[in-house]
Amino acid sequence: MARKVIIIGGVAGGATCAARLRRLDEQAEIVVLERGPYVSFANCGLPYYIGGLIREESKLLQATPELFRQRFRIDVRTQHEALAIDREQRTVRIRDLVTGAEYSERYDALVLSPGAAPVVPPLEGIRLPGIFTVRTVPDSGQIRAWIEQRAAKRAVVIGGGFIGLEMVENLAHRGLEVTLIEAMDQLLPPLDPEMAEYVRQRVAAHIANVRLGDPVAGFETGSGGALLVRTQSGLRFGADLVILSIGVRPETKLAREAGLETGARGGIRVDEQMRTSDPHIWAVGDAVEVKSAITGEWRLCPLAGPAQRQARVAAASICGRPAQFRGVESTAVVGVFGLTAAVTGESEKSLRSAGITDYEAVYLHPGNHAGYYPGAKPIHMKLLFRRADGLVLGAQAVGEEDVARRIDVISMAIQKGATVFDLEEAELCYAPQYGSAKDPVNMAGMIAANVMRGDIEIAPWGALGAGGAMVLDVREPAEHQAGTIPGAVNIPLGQLRQRLGELPRDREIQVTCAVGQRAYYACRILRQHGFQAKLLSGGYRTYRTLPQECGAAAVRG
Amino acid sequence: MARKVIIIGGVAGGATCAARLRRLDEQAEIVVLERGPYVSFANCGLPYYIGGLIREESKLLQATPELFRQRFRIDVRTQHEALAIDREQRTVRIRDLVTGAEYSERYDALVLSPGAAPVVPPLEGIRLPGIFTVRTVPDSGQIRAWIEQRAAKRAVVIGGGFIGLEMVENLAHRGLEVTLIEAMDQLLPPLDPEMAEYVRQRVAAHIANVRLGDPVAGFETGSGGALLVRTQSGLRFGADLVILSIGVRPETKLAREAGLETGARGGIRVDEQMRTSDPHIWAVGDAVEVKSAITGEWRLCPLAGPAQRQARVAAASICGRPAQFRGVESTAVVGVFGLTAAVTGESEKSLRSAGITDYEAVYLHPGNHAGYYPGAKPIHMKLLFRRADGLVLGAQAVGEEDVARRIDVISMAIQKGATVFDLEEAELCYAPQYGSAKDPVNMAGMIAANVMRGDIEIAPWGALGAGGAMVLDVREPAEHQAGTIPGAVNIPLGQLRQRLGELPRDREIQVTCAVGQRAYYACRILRQHGFQAKLLSGGYRTYRTLPQECGAAAVRG
Repeated sequence: MARKVIIIGGVAGGATCAARLRRLDEQAEIVVLERGPYVSFANCGLPYYIGGLIREESKLLQATPELFRQRFRIDVRTQHEALAIDREQRTVRIRDLVTGAEYSERYDALVLSPGAAPVVPPLEGIRLPGIFTVRTVPDSGQIRAWIEQRAAKRAVVIGGGFIGLEMVENLAHRGLEVTLIEAMDQLLPPLDPEMAEYVRQRVAAHIANVRLGDPVAGFETGSGGALLVRTQSGLRFGADLVILSIGVRPETKLAREAGLETGARGGIRVDEQMRTSDPHIWAVGDAVEVKSAITGEWRLCPLAGPAQRQARVAAASICGRPAQFRGVESTAVVGVFGLTAAVTGESEKSLRSAGITDYEAVYLHPGNHAGYYPGAKPIHMKLLFRRADGLVLGAQAVGEEDVARRIDVISMAIQKGATVFDLEEAELCYAPQYGSAKDPVNMAGMIAANVMRGDIEIAPWGALGAGGAMVLDVREPAEHQAGTIPGAVNIPLGQLRQRLGELPRDREIQVTCAVGQRAYYACRILRQHGFQAKLLSGGYRTYRTLPQECGAAAVRG
Repeated sequence: MARKVIIIGGVAGGATCAARLRRLDEQAEIVVLERGPYVSFANCGLPYYIGGLIREESKLLQATPELFRQRFRIDVRTQHEALAIDREQRTVRIRDLVTGAEYSERYDALVLSPGAAPVVPPLEGIRLPGIFTVRTVPDSGQIRAWIEQRAAKRAVVIGGGFIGLEMVENLAHRGLEVTLIEAMDQLLPPLDPEMAEYVRQRVAAHIANVRLGDPVAGFETGSGGALLVRTQSGLRFGADLVILSIGVRPETKLAREAGLETGARGGIRVDEQMRTSDPHIWAVGDAVEVKSAITGEWRLCPLAGPAQRQARVAAASICGRPAQFRGVESTAVVGVFGLTAAVTGESEKSLRSAGITDYEAVYLHPGNHAGYYPGAKPIHMKLLFRRADGLVLGAQAVGEEDVARRIDVISMAIQKGATVFDLEEAELCYAPQYGSAKDPVNMAGMIAANVMRGDIEIAPWGALGAGGAMVLDVREPAEHQAGTIPGAVNIPLGQLRQRLGELPRDREIQVTCAVGQRAYYACRILRQHGFQAKLLSGGYRTYRTLPQECGAAAVRG
């Protein structure tokens, strides 16, 4: 007898799971329940639809219920809400949101793909008209209509994560004067602060105001009917509309009410087959907790790629096939004002919060392609690896061109348990307009491998000038004079061998240059001459992105 | 006592080896002998210097002898030619090409990095003025001068490999009318012919003439002093200049005369430490034979990336450090008229020539990013994998955007021994303008994994219509009528379940559509209903790139 599968939620995870189920089992009865009016819509495109880059709403609709019926023989019911799950009877209580009628459906297998909802904190005035979140196609339509009908001129975006930044760019693209307010001291929480600093600089150059470290306290209506956004520091920002993008929270009401296990992060707990604590119920997408493929820690990872793969695993598992979700590397990318920021694996922050200290961080700033071919753009990179064995733990990159490419390569490397020695030996595409004979990924691997082999030691930026260390700048005098780390002594690399007598042998020498290359050469010379030389990885370019506390240490040096 | 190292050849491999040696050994005496006037020049940039995209010769010169002396304490002697090696005495006989003086230098370690020379076949008229090869900065200067002084209007490029295509583009960019002549039936020999066909189409749309399968027979001087290029088929092409780019040959004269072992492909034989058959002599770069990391076969791989890594291995080995060259994946990329073609690992041709038949090929044509975001461009991909276990063997991709990115990811996958199941699970950067929730790499992995799991079977294009197979086109009637595989029967996917009665159960059904996706859905339906359905991978878009012999088979179907 044909199995009957009910899928709750028809966006990324649900739609994928349904289609995959059909391909695996031509006989199954498959019902998809979607509360909203659309299935399988491109929610990652919503900011670009609001901004007008995606012109028609129809572009966001990747498949219709009719297509699901005709092509996949799947019964998609939009505007149908699942109200409750009876696990004993294996039924779902359903309401038709159009007619108001309620009914129950039996299932052999149930898949929960309810997604995550934007966090809406209980602040004063949070329900005022003109404050929006961005989750669905109708949300986006309402924002567009609000902007057009009121000829909105000023917007405040609250939250500087991926969606927040995309909204900032798209509202600016529509000609609005935009202010971005972020509670934390950095944008893009998945990145480490010094890497996110490149993004802050770029955004600050394009919009009215970027306010970090200042949580929103409340909203009020100002004179003339405009909104006023009040921050905890007491500042007020006028706005014709406000976008709230401070994060999402797994939709677990149904699951909790049904007694399914959830985790400490607030997501539905599943096993490697995406099965919940009930053997007849699976869950996928933004509503579940997943494991970091690197640390094994549970986390939330509301991203479309993992959701798709989870959906395929769940479909296979329902059909009794072997399949396993491998966990997440949390690979992500965002573009804003011509800059791309991408990340894979762990950040220094996430390593620390997992209690992992056996790691090393290196920075570099290679061009996206050979410098002799016109138009090369720097990619600012940070690579994290395990000191014990060189295992690659994570990478972050920010730049204008070919940034996702390098992070994708490192993501694949992490997936396969690669070490920095593997990055060093990677054989990547090179022609002058595409890369370099030593690709940025190779460069990152080479620097890290030099550390692993003991050929260089890294002076962490947090220890800048610590213990009375001398800071040595090996750039040319003109570069040094144009700006350097406070207290740094200048000996150009080309003179170093002749001026070794000027250097102390009784304390650490922390070596810097523009991006770290000449400092590396200098470290090799100094170490072979018996000096305690350490590399300030990434050089002056990285120094300038550091939070204040690191910079302050240098003055003591 | 300090070791003395002599390095013969100061371009990619030699210069890298010298600099790396210095970093590993501050005491070593390092001498670099370079026959030409420059060291460490960017030979991959020469076509772009000829084309004018790289404006100044100085851009190509990455380091001067003075920089090597000052920064690395390396003694670079340009215009010094190594004449002979005395392995007994460990000396090199050297001629100063400026003064004509000869002298000998002792070495503890010798590194050969002589590169490869353009192949110049002994054809009639091959020495006529105006016939050039592209190897050095002076070569390029001569070509530029020839074009400018003679106001050259017509060029013939002989050889459609990487450099040939780059020369075609750059000469066209300078406004010359260009003809490309290639002896083989395809451009870009590292690609399989059907993948190179995309490149042929693009090139043919931009230049006067692309002539395949017609080797050059000779050259003569025509009326008015122009060159005439004669092909074996008897055609004649007038030209103001001719670029000969039919390949390169390892420079092994010195090595052979010194009695060092060479291989069947004509390169210097080295071990994994890049050591030749003489324990005091290493060799790196285009002059050596390397092993395919996939098949283990010896081959020539004249590419800058491997040369750099070989140079680092040789330097480490000379310093007594553990180091190992892992072989090559032969990753390569070329851009021509807005199209990028890239390859990594084995091609179907190279697998066959290695006697390997346990493989499968799948084709796909995904967009470089989500289709709902404007401007997505197709990437034509071919993935090769081992049937026994799904090991990724190679990939080729051609398209306008983000092509190198996908090949780089697959190169990293191959390096780590990944299977198609790993590609399926890869977690890559996705935002609408950067990729898709199912990245092209995922898609390739998913199709291949479906084959591995037995969910689909591939009908190789070479077996199109074979054994009386029915060819079934599941596109919509309008698409079918606009062009299809000869003899194909049309049943749109949406009608398939209702029209199963029209299909034969006694013979194979080969299913096609536009790019392969609907055909895959159809195959799943048909196989679950007991039909012998097989997928024509890549659909009609791949069909149209096939050599004639495959197309002909369809008519019998």
